[in-house]
Amino acid sequence: MSTSLSALQNAATQLRIDSVRSTTAAGTGHPTTCLSAADIVATLFFDEMRFDAKNPRDPDNDRFILSKGHAAPVLYAAWAAAGLFPREELLKLRQIGSDLEGHPTPRLSFVDVATGSLGQGICAAIGTALNARRIGSAYRTYVLCGDGEMAEGSVWEAADVALLHKLDNLCGIIDVNGLGQSQDTQFGHEMELIAARWRAFGWHTMVADGHDIPALQKAFAEARATKGRPSMVLARTLKGKGLAAIEGKSGWHGKALKKGEEADAAVAELQKRMTGDAKLELTIEGPRSKSRPDARPDYSKMPAPAYAKGDSIATREAWGAGLAAVGKFDSRVVALDADVKNSTFSDKFEKVAPERFFQSFIAEQVMVGAAMGLAARGAIPFPSTFACFLTRASDFVRMGGVSFSNVKYSGSHCGVSIGEDGPSQMALEDLAMMRSVPGCAVLYPCDAMSTERLVVEMTRREGMAYMRTSRPKTPVIYGPDETFPIGGSKVLRQSDSDTATVIAAGVTVFESLKAYDQLKSEGISIRVIDAYSVQPIDAKTMLDAAKATRGNVITVEDHYATGGLGDAVSEAVAEGGFAVRRLAVREIPRSGQPDELIDRYGISARHIVDAVRRAAGASR
Amino acid sequence: MSTSLSALQNAATQLRIDSVRSTTAAGTGHPTTCLSAADIVATLFFDEMRFDAKNPRDPDNDRFILSKGHAAPVLYAAWAAAGLFPREELLKLRQIGSDLEGHPTPRLSFVDVATGSLGQGICAAIGTALNARRIGSAYRTYVLCGDGEMAEGSVWEAADVALLHKLDNLCGIIDVNGLGQSQDTQFGHEMELIAARWRAFGWHTMVADGHDIPALQKAFAEARATKGRPSMVLARTLKGKGLAAIEGKSGWHGKALKKGEEADAAVAELQKRMTGDAKLELTIEGPRSKSRPDARPDYSKMPAPAYAKGDSIATREAWGAGLAAVGKFDSRVVALDADVKNSTFSDKFEKVAPERFFQSFIAEQVMVGAAMGLAARGAIPFPSTFACFLTRASDFVRMGGVSFSNVKYSGSHCGVSIGEDGPSQMALEDLAMMRSVPGCAVLYPCDAMSTERLVVEMTRREGMAYMRTSRPKTPVIYGPDETFPIGGSKVLRQSDSDTATVIAAGVTVFESLKAYDQLKSEGISIRVIDAYSVQPIDAKTMLDAAKATRGNVITVEDHYATGGLGDAVSEAVAEGGFAVRRLAVREIPRSGQPDELIDRYGISARHIVDAVRRAAGASR
Repeated sequence: MSTSLSALQNAATQLRIDSVRSTTAAGTGHPTTCLSAADIVATLFFDEMRFDAKNPRDPDNDRFILSKGHAAPVLYAAWAAAGLFPREELLKLRQIGSDLEGHPTPRLSFVDVATGSLGQGICAAIGTALNARRIGSAYRTYVLCGDGEMAEGSVWEAADVALLHKLDNLCGIIDVNGLGQSQDTQFGHEMELIAARWRAFGWHTMVADGHDIPALQKAFAEARATKGRPSMVLARTLKGKGLAAIEGKSGWHGKALKKGEEADAAVAELQKRMTGDAKLELTIEGPRSKSRPDARPDYSKMPAPAYAKGDSIATREAWGAGLAAVGKFDSRVVALDADVKNSTFSDKFEKVAPERFFQSFIAEQVMVGAAMGLAARGAIPFPSTFACFLTRASDFVRMGGVSFSNVKYSGSHCGVSIGEDGPSQMALEDLAMMRSVPGCAVLYPCDAMSTERLVVEMTRREGMAYMRTSRPKTPVIYGPDETFPIGGSKVLRQSDSDTATVIAAGVTVFESLKAYDQLKSEGISIRVIDAYSVQPIDAKTMLDAAKATRGNVITVEDHYATGGLGDAVSEAVAEGGFAVRRLAVREIPRSGQPDELIDRYGISARHIVDAVRRAAGASR
Repeated sequence: MSTSLSALQNAATQLRIDSVRSTTAAGTGHPTTCLSAADIVATLFFDEMRFDAKNPRDPDNDRFILSKGHAAPVLYAAWAAAGLFPREELLKLRQIGSDLEGHPTPRLSFVDVATGSLGQGICAAIGTALNARRIGSAYRTYVLCGDGEMAEGSVWEAADVALLHKLDNLCGIIDVNGLGQSQDTQFGHEMELIAARWRAFGWHTMVADGHDIPALQKAFAEARATKGRPSMVLARTLKGKGLAAIEGKSGWHGKALKKGEEADAAVAELQKRMTGDAKLELTIEGPRSKSRPDARPDYSKMPAPAYAKGDSIATREAWGAGLAAVGKFDSRVVALDADVKNSTFSDKFEKVAPERFFQSFIAEQVMVGAAMGLAARGAIPFPSTFACFLTRASDFVRMGGVSFSNVKYSGSHCGVSIGEDGPSQMALEDLAMMRSVPGCAVLYPCDAMSTERLVVEMTRREGMAYMRTSRPKTPVIYGPDETFPIGGSKVLRQSDSDTATVIAAGVTVFESLKAYDQLKSEGISIRVIDAYSVQPIDAKTMLDAAKATRGNVITVEDHYATGGLGDAVSEAVAEGGFAVRRLAVREIPRSGQPDELIDRYGISARHIVDAVRRAAGASR
């Protein structure tokens, strides 16, 4: 049993009507891009895709990702037509009390990742397609893109990676309506010119009339039959299709039709397209397979890391070891690399779980986008690269926040302590970037023991997390019995007569300990805190320390002065009316040896000693 | 007169020797990627390119951009061979006292943009090529890329935009050595597979043996003869070429040869490749043309903006008007758009200077990268899009900082005040991103008058700058006689009995003024400051206000609490021991009406009034 052609055509018409009505009710939005996509969406939802419409989260449902997120109203209309919620809900589009937001977000059960920043949905689709392999499911992933978004480089990163992984369970559709926001797209309706690109990138590429439902059905069937590579359907469409005064015309991007005559006439014009008795007898077939639910291992049974105090090991290497350990322990854990696995040590994971290790080559955007897709389907993805190159995926990280994605980022080689490679390879803004995502745990351990423990913590904790690791080897200072809760800190030195509190993380912990020793030899005692959890920060410990040390609070970090540890501590102690003196990097650094640079840019023991002396002098 | 083949071959050998010697002296670095590129670099520098080797900054010199920045030693060796500095300098590679850093930066006179983050140099090359048109110069741009970096989507953004602008003065070369950092590249030496992509993207594409100098000469000549589109030379090479034990082998990425036997044997092996009497009789022809120097207009003669107090106009629109005004006044000013010109109002510039308006379509990375290239050659580029989508180019912004690029960014539609479009379109981390670049001026005006004045200020001031603009209309509150120096602020309300200082910017200025009125009616007076210059912040005014209001300092911003106005003020007043209470957005927002959202997320007048009351209560 399947949906008849006339029912599909009517369904498409109903999607158009609902898209016009909802955007007009909202007074804002994008009806015309919905109209170009309506036949594609109707064919996918009510003929091609297999899913349980009552349970959008079913792990074996085919996935639909709306990469052109501004067409949200047609997506919402499709789920209303599928029976998930009453059609009248659509008229609450973009209202503060409704989850039917201007662009789709996973507040809605049927949305895997937030879209609305173009060129991202197709990257996430790589992730949902990879996840089908992880869980052994036959579900397929469909991703609907706009033609304008092909200008985004991330789309071509996705093209490469989908080919690399031979994702024949992935079908892309590009709604080629030829119109961008402000003018015609670069290639308009030159379908063969666009097709040549996808063919050159190795995809099975088809061109179809995007308003011809049988032609779309044929293309989707051909995609299903294609093995060993992804498929792309280039659908020629008209923006505003169905409304004679608007279709194919510039100047209508992002404009709702006006309430009253304009919208009423449009709805009436669309109604006339209904065939037969205008009924919608829609059939949706259930999932293609039934996979086993993910196991959730008991993390309390994980063995402790085997480091001895005094061992010398870089936190990046301990991160790799921790990743391999959780990877062995939990089949939901996957790792993604951007061709630096031998520097970040994610290759330790590859050795223990090669089938869950995904190479992206030097393409950070698709690496992060794929991680978002994987996370949406129950995997616990760890994308990693040099911390500075995570900025390449900053917009994906941002949208991962909007998606509430359970992604565990790691960035290695942070700060000037990397040394000779110079500023292009130094992350000095990654804490600011990651702290800018509400709810993201931001971790910055100083030794191997705390690093491995925190890898476990970030895996167990639901939600986005980031771990910053360092290139140089550092001594292990924590024993196997220490715990490192997210939101905690470690007071490493304290006495009843502390003059100042020095709060550090990562390599500056060791500079602070050196400063402690030097000051102690001069009869000055200070409190030293390892703030391994930069977000959430351990506000109580920081406040207590500030109170105990006459408000002399000094932070020191291998990061720029903006948005990092200093600012985090500053807000924490502001509750008590205390201010913070921030030692941080304040100019573009240059190449040199790590110790030279740490000193030159003001974050070495010598500078901490000076700051303590100044603070002590000022508060005397 | 031209360099003989044997001299070119010897020059290539010398580049190899110098690359080995300098990296061995440094003890770190990337010799093997230099060895694969040596014949290409020798052919370009000593046969193809035309430039004044004594004056690398000559505006009519052919440009060479090393997109594969880790091959820096071969670039440095080429300039030493060209006579710019003594060869012995090369042995200072990567030392803190030398500008010969691990990756190239514009501290060196012959480097236009810092590279080392892959996939960026080719974007900058678009900018230098566009600049040749702007100044009417015949110079050509050559950009040398690695094959690994083709995985970066930004490369394909550049491919599109170069075709769009028909940049036949641009010649790319890809050093296809088939080896990435951690493993083989995705396509190895499958030259035709790679060529198919460039052909599909419309470039004149040639395949050559990258170690065959006559073949390279022929390809470069063919590129020069190609009109109406850019050219790409795919050069098949071996990583480590010239050293039998290493060439074409994995495992040698980023490894310097060991001092002593290993390096000595390598140098001896290379020396044997010298032909004839091993002399380097190198000829470098001068520039192809002589262009007129850029005019530098007298900005004091610019007419004042024509707004009247009380006019209602969005700052984004005033930014567009200001951009058009400086564009008319100064031919160095260029604008770049990512298909949102009718929302950001950069289309006002397009109307007055269409020949200096460059469309990038929805490709923010190449837009920013091209701006960096333009800036390197004397243009004053204004790339703009929605502020949230500037995060797409975050790594380019970062590298623009490392490049000390004179780029003037603008991001519109900041904050929750955009309303119904929802979180994917709201920039709530852009201040943090831009403040993370040392020296970047970060401006956030609240009305049209200050906006236009600040556009002029940011144009005149050398160095990177960012202006954040808002979607909603706001009233003009400043008259034509007000000045807005970068680093300044405006005290809008004050008295001798102020209870607290409220520091705002953009839309929250008006919320603060509402709060002032309400509190005043209750007999409470507050100081209100418009901190239009978020970086540098007006520390003196902030400190004075903090002192005058018993340390009750409240910031309020349409931005997340991390890295924005609150943190900037916090560091400024920390000098006086004062703490800051930050009103800011603290969760992922949703769709709704602007006023609803401003209130829901805690930054409306009501919340300011509450914060003032709490502060006043606490300090009583």
